[in-house]
Amino acid sequence: MTLDSGFPVDGGAPTPVETVAGLGEAEVLRRIFPRLPHAQAELLGPGDDAAVVAAPDGRYVVTTDFMVQGPDFRSAWSTPHDLGWKAAMTNLSDVAAMGARPTALVVALAAPQDTPVDVLLGIADGLRDACALAAPGCGVVGGDLSTSPALTIAVTAFGDLEGRDAVTRSGGRAGDTVAVAGDLGRAGAGLWLLFRDAVTPTGRVPDALRAETVKAAHTELVAGQVAPVAPISSGVRAALGGATAMLDVSDGLVLDARRLAAASGCAVRFDASAIAREVGALLDVDAVVGDRAADFVLRGGEDHALLASFPAGAELPEGFRRLGELGDGSGVYLGDSPVEGEGGWDPYSGWDGASG
Amino acid sequence: MTLDSGFPVDGGAPTPVETVAGLGEAEVLRRIFPRLPHAQAELLGPGDDAAVVAAPDGRYVVTTDFMVQGPDFRSAWSTPHDLGWKAAMTNLSDVAAMGARPTALVVALAAPQDTPVDVLLGIADGLRDACALAAPGCGVVGGDLSTSPALTIAVTAFGDLEGRDAVTRSGGRAGDTVAVAGDLGRAGAGLWLLFRDAVTPTGRVPDALRAETVKAAHTELVAGQVAPVAPISSGVRAALGGATAMLDVSDGLVLDARRLAAASGCAVRFDASAIAREVGALLDVDAVVGDRAADFVLRGGEDHALLASFPAGAELPEGFRRLGELGDGSGVYLGDSPVEGEGGWDPYSGWDGASG
Repeated sequence: MTLDSGFPVDGGAPTPVETVAGLGEAEVLRRIFPRLPHAQAELLGPGDDAAVVAAPDGRYVVTTDFMVQGPDFRSAWSTPHDLGWKAAMTNLSDVAAMGARPTALVVALAAPQDTPVDVLLGIADGLRDACALAAPGCGVVGGDLSTSPALTIAVTAFGDLEGRDAVTRSGGRAGDTVAVAGDLGRAGAGLWLLFRDAVTPTGRVPDALRAETVKAAHTELVAGQVAPVAPISSGVRAALGGATAMLDVSDGLVLDARRLAAASGCAVRFDASAIAREVGALLDVDAVVGDRAADFVLRGGEDHALLASFPAGAELPEGFRRLGELGDGSGVYLGDSPVEGEGGWDPYSGWDGASG
Repeated sequence: MTLDSGFPVDGGAPTPVETVAGLGEAEVLRRIFPRLPHAQAELLGPGDDAAVVAAPDGRYVVTTDFMVQGPDFRSAWSTPHDLGWKAAMTNLSDVAAMGARPTALVVALAAPQDTPVDVLLGIADGLRDACALAAPGCGVVGGDLSTSPALTIAVTAFGDLEGRDAVTRSGGRAGDTVAVAGDLGRAGAGLWLLFRDAVTPTGRVPDALRAETVKAAHTELVAGQVAPVAPISSGVRAALGGATAMLDVSDGLVLDARRLAAASGCAVRFDASAIAREVGALLDVDAVVGDRAADFVLRGGEDHALLASFPAGAELPEGFRRLGELGDGSGVYLGDSPVEGEGGWDPYSGWDGASG
C-alpha cells in the first residue's frame, strides 16, 4: 500500500520531481545532514551506530513525541518547514517544562516512497530554524529514515538540568501563585479556522489553495497552529525563579491545569480577571475568534505555553503572567465556579480518520 | 484513511475486541505501564512532561530506529510480542555496538484506531522480555501514543559507556583481527523462507496461517528474522577486550564490513575457512538454506551480530569468533578475491509497497 505524500506539487514544473525512492537512503541523508543544526553537547555525532552526548551533571532529561500525517497534521495546511518546526518545538517544550535546557534531538522520519526529497529538506530546515530561535546550541545528533504510508516524524529530545532538581507537576502547594508563559488560544483558534475555511465545500477535505487564503487573512492564528513559538527559554527561567510545579500546555489550559492540580494535591483557582485579560489578548490578535475566544483560551491545545506555580509572593520570572493561585481541594475553578469540560485531544478516540 | 491492524483476529470469539479507539489513550496507557520493564537508571519515570535518566560518567549513548508495518515487518508473520522484542533488540544492538551498556528506552507507538489493545500489550511484553534477556536493568522510561494507518514503533535507546571511550567504526588498523559475535545468516534465511512459503499462492500476500506452518518446520530461521537474539552483552565485553572498531551487522556482513573498512581506512580480509565455518554452522541450524547458505551469511541482514576488530594477537573476548583481519587497502576480500555485491536494505528503493 502506498499513498501519495499529500504535499502540493507544482504540476507545471518541467523537471521531474526527485523522490526519496528515486534517490535512495544514502543520497537523501547526504543532502539532509548539512542542513541539520549542530548540538554543542554532541561528543560523537551521526555516522556511527549511535551518538554520544554530554550530560555534565550526570543526568539527562528525555521526552519523545510522534507527529503523524492525518491525526497530527495535514500536509495541505502545513509546509514541510512547519512540520520540522513544530516537531522540534513540541519536544523542546516538554524538555523546558522540566526546567531543563534543551541540548539535543534525534529524529526518526518515515515518508511515503513518492515523497519529494524537498519535503525532507524542508523538514530539516524547520528543525534547524526552531532550534536556532528557541534553543540555541541544541541540535540533531542522530536519526533514522524509513518508509510509511503516512509521513511520520518521531522526535526524541534531551535536556540538561544544569545541577538543578527537575520541576515536576507535583510540587505545587496551596497558596502558590499560578502563572503562564507563552500564548493561550492561538493554536486552537487556528485549527478551528482551517477546519472552517481551508477545506473543500463538499468533502470537507483539507485544501492547500484555500489554506493560503486563510493564512493571508489570519496569519498569527494559523501560525500558532502550524508553527507555534513556544516559550522554551522560560522553562529554565521558571526553575531559576523557584517554580514549584510546571507543565507544558499541550492539551488545553483546563485539562493541563487539572493535571497539575491532581499531581500537586491542590485546586487550581484562576482569577476571572486574569482569564478575561487572556481572552482580550487573543481577541486583540485576531477578532475573528469572536465569542469563541474564551473557549480557545481555556480549552484550545497545542500552544505549548508553560503553566507553572511559584511560591506566594515570589516575583514572577520574565515572561510569566499571573493567572491565579493554588488552593486547598481539587479540580479547576474560574473565580468561585468549578470549570467543567476538559477539552484536549485523544489520538485514539478524537480523530475522525480524515487525512489530507 | 484507516487501515485495519492486519493482525489475525479470532473470528469465533464471542466477546467484542477491545480496540485502542474504543478504550482511549488514558486507559490504554493504564494497561500498558505495569507491563513495561523498569530501568535501574531511571531517576524520574513516565507521567511527567519528560523523564530523567542517570548518566554516571557524564555522557550517554543514544540511537533511534523505526519499525513500520510493511517495509519493516508484516503482522501476518510477526506476533505483537515479536514486534516489541525486535524493536528493543535492534536498538539495544546499536547501543552495544558502541561498547556501551544499554540503560533505558523511550518508545513512541502509532497504531490504527481499530487495533486490538492486546496488540499493544503484546508489544509491551516483547519489549520487557527482550530487555530482561539481553540487557537486564534496562527499561522503558517514557513514550508516546498516536494513530497511524500503519502500525509504527519508534524506539530510542540509551547506554552508559561506564567511563570508557566509545568504540566507533573508525579505529581499526591493518593487522587487527576481525571477529564476530552472534548469528550470521539466520534472519536473512528466515525472511527468504517466509516470502517463499508464507504468502498466498496467487497474490503473494503474507499469510498468517501459512506462516504458522513455516514456523513449525523452520523454527530457528523464522525466529532469527521475527525475534532475533542479538549478542548485546558482547558489546561491553568487546570494549573491555580492547576492540579497536565495532558495528552492528544490520545490513549484511559484506556491506557492514565495507563500512568498517571505509571508516578505518583499511581492507577487511575474511579467511575463506572462517566463512566456510559460518556457512556450515548455518546449514547445521537448518539444511533448507542449501546452496543459498553462503549468500545469507555474507549478505543477509537483520541478525544484529557484532562485527569488531581487535589488536593482532589479543585474546578474543568470550563469544567472538575470528573471521579474518584488517589489511592495507580498501574494500572487502574473501581470501584473495574482492567480494562484489552489497546486499543490504534501502527503505526507499528496496520496498515494493506490499503490506500484510
